[in-house]
Amino acid sequence: MPGPLEGVLVVDLTRVLAGPFATMMMADLGARVIKVERPGTGDDSRGYGPYVEGRSMYFARVNRGKESVALDLKDPANRSVLDELVDRADVLVENFRPGVMDRLGLGPETLRARNPGLVYCSISGFGQTGPLRGRQAYDTVVQAASGLMSVTGFPGGPPVKPGAPFGDLSAALYAFGAICAALVDRHRTGRGARIDIAMFDCLVSLVEGAGLYWLADGTDPGPIGNAHYSITPFDAFSAADRQIIICAANDELFGRLLAAMGREDLAEMPQYASNLSRTQHRDLLKDELEGTLRKRQADDWLALLTRAGVPCGPISTIAEALGSEQTEQRHMVVTVDGWRQPGNPMKSDRTQEPVGSGPAPDLDEQGAALRREFGRPAQ
Amino acid sequence: MPGPLEGVLVVDLTRVLAGPFATMMMADLGARVIKVERPGTGDDSRGYGPYVEGRSMYFARVNRGKESVALDLKDPANRSVLDELVDRADVLVENFRPGVMDRLGLGPETLRARNPGLVYCSISGFGQTGPLRGRQAYDTVVQAASGLMSVTGFPGGPPVKPGAPFGDLSAALYAFGAICAALVDRHRTGRGARIDIAMFDCLVSLVEGAGLYWLADGTDPGPIGNAHYSITPFDAFSAADRQIIICAANDELFGRLLAAMGREDLAEMPQYASNLSRTQHRDLLKDELEGTLRKRQADDWLALLTRAGVPCGPISTIAEALGSEQTEQRHMVVTVDGWRQPGNPMKSDRTQEPVGSGPAPDLDEQGAALRREFGRPAQ
Repeated sequence: MPGPLEGVLVVDLTRVLAGPFATMMMADLGARVIKVERPGTGDDSRGYGPYVEGRSMYFARVNRGKESVALDLKDPANRSVLDELVDRADVLVENFRPGVMDRLGLGPETLRARNPGLVYCSISGFGQTGPLRGRQAYDTVVQAASGLMSVTGFPGGPPVKPGAPFGDLSAALYAFGAICAALVDRHRTGRGARIDIAMFDCLVSLVEGAGLYWLADGTDPGPIGNAHYSITPFDAFSAADRQIIICAANDELFGRLLAAMGREDLAEMPQYASNLSRTQHRDLLKDELEGTLRKRQADDWLALLTRAGVPCGPISTIAEALGSEQTEQRHMVVTVDGWRQPGNPMKSDRTQEPVGSGPAPDLDEQGAALRREFGRPAQ
Repeated sequence: MPGPLEGVLVVDLTRVLAGPFATMMMADLGARVIKVERPGTGDDSRGYGPYVEGRSMYFARVNRGKESVALDLKDPANRSVLDELVDRADVLVENFRPGVMDRLGLGPETLRARNPGLVYCSISGFGQTGPLRGRQAYDTVVQAASGLMSVTGFPGGPPVKPGAPFGDLSAALYAFGAICAALVDRHRTGRGARIDIAMFDCLVSLVEGAGLYWLADGTDPGPIGNAHYSITPFDAFSAADRQIIICAANDELFGRLLAAMGREDLAEMPQYASNLSRTQHRDLLKDELEGTLRKRQADDWLALLTRAGVPCGPISTIAEALGSEQTEQRHMVVTVDGWRQPGNPMKSDRTQEPVGSGPAPDLDEQGAALRREFGRPAQ
């Protein structure tokens, strides 16, 4: 099955993670993605671990299913291959620092004048506009700048970076969505688009609860551990042996929780009568609940609460999560060219399962064929 | 400007966050989104804070620009309105527990038989298949199940939930992208799609570095604080007064960092000669760098490193991030109907800036008009 993006030609001028992840999603869904790399060393991420048999698994995952051509963008012969690629492409994605594409003569005005249907997407740390536009940015710089690290962790503790690079990854996801929306628009209007994705904007849009409180009343919320800014009880709670997650997100679920725990006494107390009031008395309620939860083992509570219809669960390790039966049945670990990788979560009856991408390319692996396909006759 | 999804009609049967965030993205880009709510109380999130003037800002943000109709799906007259809506819709999004839509007679086979072009997207905690499909799930249950909490925080410390609800939000972003890709496919083939997004799958696809190490060699990595699994130095470092972020993601940037710090001596040491080797000696290198960084103030280092072209930055609070000049110039805080909200990060010359959505609807606010528009004559 070719996938929903069959027939879409993507010129991929991206490196490291945010850009390559976005174009991997396009390849997973059937687009043809041609990765243009710097001659000699190629994408920096070819040097990022983990390594298996001398190959970077970091690179292999986010570049699966792509073709690679090494082009020196300042060399005229190489450049004519790129020009032809760009003129025939549906989508161009780049994640250079703002200004670099213009200096290379590859700015959006130039390329869209030649190919008006082109969807031209830039991904950068802080965007193409604003006082911080020129700042060099990698994931952690932006996770820190967005306020996200300041609201991850425990009150009084140090700022914490989430265990996944959400600065890069959220930009990849937003870029993928914006590109596909632009392709929908182009089908209707014939017009391409100039898309400008900033990792900083993406995280600002996602800090959600903490951000909403500041916007509502100027309260800088700070971290609240594993609790929820707006919903209570919704947290990690200590049982006798270890922590479990309980999410009682409305009055009905809260009632079920209290009944299952034999703590109906709490239902009588006015401070726990509504979600809003429970959230105002979050710490007090947690102490009350843990007073009971600590009397039994986590597994006992999970079985009991699950039977009672209360959303709950264990805190899994990576091995438990990725090695689970659920992960296997959902094809969320796949084997591409002999190596295990995370699969494609966009499950659809129009998309091949498990993801059918080929392996990531060696540097310039399809270079000779692509130079023939996109070569222009000498002038 | 109407936006790239102009003309797309979305029936929105979602509640709380993952689903409503996905359909908010569609509304921000110009789709018409009709939110079907339970009569009486409507979406649970109408009861989630923060509140301003008696209105939930949580609800107001993720439901901006939508129309609301309250329908009892078990009542025949109400049901005929929904049936007509579904027959005319381009997209349906729902986030009930797996099985509920089928029991309501609204399963994908039924609806797609009547409307073959329909893009039918389900969002759930663990997906429509697999042993955990029936599990009730809210964000924290899935953040814990995916392994993400186990790799957030410091070695030896408790598991930490990232400060934003990435279980819901990553599902929203993947759903939005998958829906738009399906609309591209439909333009070409005339066929709709049946999309199945699981919050669990989404996070499994994003645990990235930690997941790749486990997949590569079975090492369950555990949390590594603010460091990076694959790149070094790439962390929060202590200066004399507070922490700063430094990301030297390749040999050239590492060389610049050492030169700017006057620590060229480290460049001579074989254990720091490559990114791979630096990552194997991460703690040792951090001690060396902090030995020097602690001698000066954070602001001094940030100025010096920025001049030297080393990616770096401060750790901002939410107030600093959302109140910044960059955020303002990028329209990442917008005022909708008098209330401040995060803006739309999918910047494009085909999308209105700042986001032009109307306010979130009161329960059944457009109910009368929608019953007229989609009412069927009595049989």
